[in-house]
Amino acid sequence: MQGSPDILYKAAQHLPKAGGKRLRPALVILVSKALGGTLENAIYPALSIELMHNFTLVHDDIMDRDEKRRGIPTVHVIYGEPMAILAGDLLYAKSYEALLKSRLAPDILKKMTEVLTWAAVTLAEGQALDMTFEERWDVSEEEYMEMINKKTGSLFAASAMLGGLAANRADLQEQLKELGSKMGVAFQIRDDLLSLIGDESKTGKSKYNDLREGKKTLIVIKALERASSTQLETLKNILGKKDASLDELERAFRILEETGALEYAQRKAEELAERAISIVKSLPVVDEDARNILIELIEFGIKREY
Amino acid sequence: MQGSPDILYKAAQHLPKAGGKRLRPALVILVSKALGGTLENAIYPALSIELMHNFTLVHDDIMDRDEKRRGIPTVHVIYGEPMAILAGDLLYAKSYEALLKSRLAPDILKKMTEVLTWAAVTLAEGQALDMTFEERWDVSEEEYMEMINKKTGSLFAASAMLGGLAANRADLQEQLKELGSKMGVAFQIRDDLLSLIGDESKTGKSKYNDLREGKKTLIVIKALERASSTQLETLKNILGKKDASLDELERAFRILEETGALEYAQRKAEELAERAISIVKSLPVVDEDARNILIELIEFGIKREY
Repeated sequence: MQGSPDILYKAAQHLPKAGGKRLRPALVILVSKALGGTLENAIYPALSIELMHNFTLVHDDIMDRDEKRRGIPTVHVIYGEPMAILAGDLLYAKSYEALLKSRLAPDILKKMTEVLTWAAVTLAEGQALDMTFEERWDVSEEEYMEMINKKTGSLFAASAMLGGLAANRADLQEQLKELGSKMGVAFQIRDDLLSLIGDESKTGKSKYNDLREGKKTLIVIKALERASSTQLETLKNILGKKDASLDELERAFRILEETGALEYAQRKAEELAERAISIVKSLPVVDEDARNILIELIEFGIKREY
Repeated sequence: MQGSPDILYKAAQHLPKAGGKRLRPALVILVSKALGGTLENAIYPALSIELMHNFTLVHDDIMDRDEKRRGIPTVHVIYGEPMAILAGDLLYAKSYEALLKSRLAPDILKKMTEVLTWAAVTLAEGQALDMTFEERWDVSEEEYMEMINKKTGSLFAASAMLGGLAANRADLQEQLKELGSKMGVAFQIRDDLLSLIGDESKTGKSKYNDLREGKKTLIVIKALERASSTQLETLKNILGKKDASLDELERAFRILEETGALEYAQRKAEELAERAISIVKSLPVVDEDARNILIELIEFGIKREY
């Protein structure tokens, strides 16, 4: 990715170059391969999804005031907010550009562009919901599931759907959408857990930042639901307090532990992963190896430490 | 445009609902009509361009700290920066969604998506250049022209190109690109002039904001080039001073007047408009009325008071 001015392209490449797990492009490629598609047809859609994902990270980090990701400072910390906004916008455009570089037939390309655009709309809605939740104490599990389905599920869903289209299996879009969505939500719940129990040197993110920002993760929602009145008061005092001390954050964390909210969330992630795996097993797969790796990827999503 | 959560859609519709001149969609429709295209084929591309334009305004206003546009407070002033970033992102996605709603043949649609994406990449580059200019005193007219061609020219160019594609005249893309680009740059130079000499109640924007932000408009570049050493010192002290007083801003403005930079810029805009009109006259037009309105639109761009 090259262009002028240099500083814009440096800012845009800051996060992609830092790596990440690249689960979403892997999902595109594995689904396509499992269904008999060629790598050539899947590679640009996969790139497109990863660029779209990186765009959302750059903007979300500004909105959520996250200062660390993938073990390095976030884009706006290094380049300032204006350039970070623009870097995200450029990655967004480059996401479409990548898709357009593929040599797919125009009608398949049209369907892919529709999927990518649906995901872009949906994930903006999800991020907005997530932001409105920060001010609320009464978010239900159902509302959380709608939010996270939109915010994280949609891009995983789009990945699986693009993989299907790359393999010329437009007939499987509904199953692939559910597969990706379930896998994505399971992955995200594990992500929220890791931001509490994970080792910062492995996750690459600032520990407890979700608590400081008042994010209503499934864990927090379940803890608020189950907390005693004393615990509830403590949580309400600490969650969303931008300048909370480490001591306070650890106190809040202990309540999440005591109410069993951590186990509840992990169990939920496992259920969703099981459902995703059962969909994989029901697909008309032609490549068993790709299918097995796909199943391993879903399992990795809920067991990982990073 | 409807969706959930409500606040995101309200923020996204804040600017589009405030109107604006809608020159870019008019350009799509007039070019298409002049070349014999149907309104049905041009309407979604036109909508797409206007949504893309509104997306850039929302984000640019955050980056440039503009607080007023179209006579009302900007999106981030009302909804806060995080929601404004997201509102821009949503408008961006909706721009592609609008294009995909058209019933054009997939190969034409592919070409249109390419044009839209080219414009999105290019205008991000233009905005980044514009930002890097703020810190510099030695920006040349040539550099300015490159920046403004990218920042404003590209979306006007894309508008004319989409109009051509809507009329099934893919063979005219180069001419239409130049036509749009010249028209856009002329329009923008007039815009920069109006932010200095215009009536705030007509322009709907905060007067002198460009001076406060240290924007290197053609006017400022020419004044810096022609200024005496005393004038130069005054300009360097005031331009880019975020808390400059009205008195200071007016002092800087008088130097722009005294150096003849205002007339120079207006003349430049007129030359560009003439070139755009000569391209219009060279097109294989089938609808004379549409062509005449198009010429009037270009002339309006450099004569307008708002």
